Amino acid sequence: MSRPQFPMQERVPQELPPLDHRGRSERVRSRLETSSFITADPANIRWLTGFTGSTAWAVVLPDRVVLVTDGRYADRASADVAGAGVEDEVEVAVEDSQPAMRDHVVRLASGLGAVGAEAARLTHARWTDLAEHLPLVAADGAVESERRVKDTAELARIAHACRIADAALAVVAPRLGDGLTETDVHDELEHLMRQMGADGPSYDTIVASGPVHAARPHHGAVRRTIVPGDTVVIDVGALVDGYHSDMTRSYVIGVPQPLQQEWYDLVLAAQLAGLEVVGPGVASREVDAACRQVFDEAGVGEWFVHASGHGVGLVIHEEPFHARTSEAELVVGDVVTVEPGLYRAGFGGFRVEDLVEVTAHGHRILTHSPKDAPCLPSPPTI
Amino acid sequence: MSRPQFPMQERVPQELPPLDHRGRSERVRSRLETSSFITADPANIRWLTGFTGSTAWAVVLPDRVVLVTDGRYADRASADVAGAGVEDEVEVAVEDSQPAMRDHVVRLASGLGAVGAEAARLTHARWTDLAEHLPLVAADGAVESERRVKDTAELARIAHACRIADAALAVVAPRLGDGLTETDVHDELEHLMRQMGADGPSYDTIVASGPVHAARPHHGAVRRTIVPGDTVVIDVGALVDGYHSDMTRSYVIGVPQPLQQEWYDLVLAAQLAGLEVVGPGVASREVDAACRQVFDEAGVGEWFVHASGHGVGLVIHEEPFHARTSEAELVVGDVVTVEPGLYRAGFGGFRVEDLVEVTAHGHRILTHSPKDAPCLPSPPTI
Repeated sequence: MSRPQFPMQERVPQELPPLDHRGRSERVRSRLETSSFITADPANIRWLTGFTGSTAWAVVLPDRVVLVTDGRYADRASADVAGAGVEDEVEVAVEDSQPAMRDHVVRLASGLGAVGAEAARLTHARWTDLAEHLPLVAADGAVESERRVKDTAELARIAHACRIADAALAVVAPRLGDGLTETDVHDELEHLMRQMGADGPSYDTIVASGPVHAARPHHGAVRRTIVPGDTVVIDVGALVDGYHSDMTRSYVIGVPQPLQQEWYDLVLAAQLAGLEVVGPGVASREVDAACRQVFDEAGVGEWFVHASGHGVGLVIHEEPFHARTSEAELVVGDVVTVEPGLYRAGFGGFRVEDLVEVTAHGHRILTHSPKDAPCLPSPPTI
Repeated sequence: MSRPQFPMQERVPQELPPLDHRGRSERVRSRLETSSFITADPANIRWLTGFTGSTAWAVVLPDRVVLVTDGRYADRASADVAGAGVEDEVEVAVEDSQPAMRDHVVRLASGLGAVGAEAARLTHARWTDLAEHLPLVAADGAVESERRVKDTAELARIAHACRIADAALAVVAPRLGDGLTETDVHDELEHLMRQMGADGPSYDTIVASGPVHAARPHHGAVRRTIVPGDTVVIDVGALVDGYHSDMTRSYVIGVPQPLQQEWYDLVLAAQLAGLEVVGPGVASREVDAACRQVFDEAGVGEWFVHASGHGVGLVIHEEPFHARTSEAELVVGDVVTVEPGLYRAGFGGFRVEDLVEVTAHGHRILTHSPKDAPCLPSPPTI
């Protein structure tokens, strides 16, 4: 059977307000117990300064932020900072090597007392090297704690990324029974999202089918043809201006067997129970507990082998994490997934995941692909 | 102008010998000064055990390797280890959380004296946490030193990835003057490579055009339409079974201006001079020096703002690096790029890059896209 060719798609219309990075460095400063702070984390640097490259340091000083990068990024760094509206807050410095960049950072942060740095982001080698010259103290989360709360322009990008993933899945899902391989579905989804205006996929799209692959929550798509009777798990998101979306839908090719229907219904019930809980002031572990309770009461808890969700923003997995042991509490402006699943080798698996914004009155669901049934319509004639 | 639709492509034919991971752990053991070694680096773990997931520890013990992962990867880990032919050398252990995985690693490595670990890969937080329970010593490079030398099956995958990138570029390059945006070119190249059998792009494809973007060595593609007079830099590679390719070609849309021709000729001359040097026993910095000398003699050295190349394998940038200060020496089985370039804001830029295998008699070029001239043929009628 020859592979169907999908028609070219139009871009999903968008009117996105400009991103505004002003005042972010001051918010971070107010969290610090030191007078300076260093980060080499690309997402934290992007959030602070607008810089979109991969190699830089940002040094938060009492009066300004200095973005230290190398010659490959000189021009782009200045353009990014200007585009983020923070030319008054962020100074760009260019060096011609990694050691020179390190030396520049050391010069900037010297003589200011203890220097905050990210023990969970810097490698041990980088930390010990810097610590020979600067009195480092761990200051993890200084940026992430502010970054997790999204403003209107950030929320608009995440919502737009969700719409793009919805639109791409709407094109591909009805064709899942048409003899496509997992790889075909993966590639078409990612290509469609780009055509529709995404900067790329939010992560490597998961297309997991059949009794073995669909039983793996993090399966990588391979050239296995999807066949009748399969369960199929598709986990897909789009990237817009660095902001990610995240969504999972699950299918059965053909008429579901009784156990397939039963497990799908349980997964959907667990997901709705988790969503029901999401709101400001709620402990992240309560979201996990709400999902888990549905499975435990049905006696299938052992087949739920991961946590119930996580925050999403400039990074696909960020605080808060809905794990059993989480200490996090949801706040207005958090964007989080709710994504329980059941997996068993020989059966396959199901996961249903939405991305939601935490609002003053509860939450707003950002992903809208249908999830009421696992059964696909009969495949159209090609 | 409506965007041209590229025709569907056939897969590039391949006959790849199976990967064989046997004996690799013993090679690493022979480099260790400790009786055990811990890594959490995905590429090092993949090379040792065949595991293709993102979250695991590998613990090299005197008599075996233990791969410690979580429930999401349980089934896949065993399948990967079996596929790599190392069931006799590698044992799989599954835990249900990150802390439980850490505890398992500590139990395995306890009582064996000093434990080698990767200071340049582990975060400072992870290192200090482990160091509370185990006498860690830095053992960076224990795997990388072996991993950089590719065997026949690995070389076949890298060469195949190069052929796919060549084939994709051959479809797209003649259309660069047809009103495409950078994003269009980026997306088509990545989609074509997948159709042709790649698992994906080797890295985010660079399409940098015109006086501003092409002057940025690491530009991200945006929705700028490529126009006559532009210089265009395309840096593209494919991924096959985890192995990367890497290649850059540069173009002028239309007839080159004299300075464009002059700079292109210099870049090509520098690249050929660098290639000429590549062979076993040669210092990596000599490759850099050979490229740089061409630019320095022509008085344009200031516009060459990066190093001349790097190793490529399971990671896109790995040892050896052709930097001025490199201590590395090329050995048979190394796979390295040679990639000088010239960039100036207002002018644009050029880079020419090939991927080559170091052989007993010198080197073998793996990328074959034409590079003799910067000028594109007249665009075909759509």
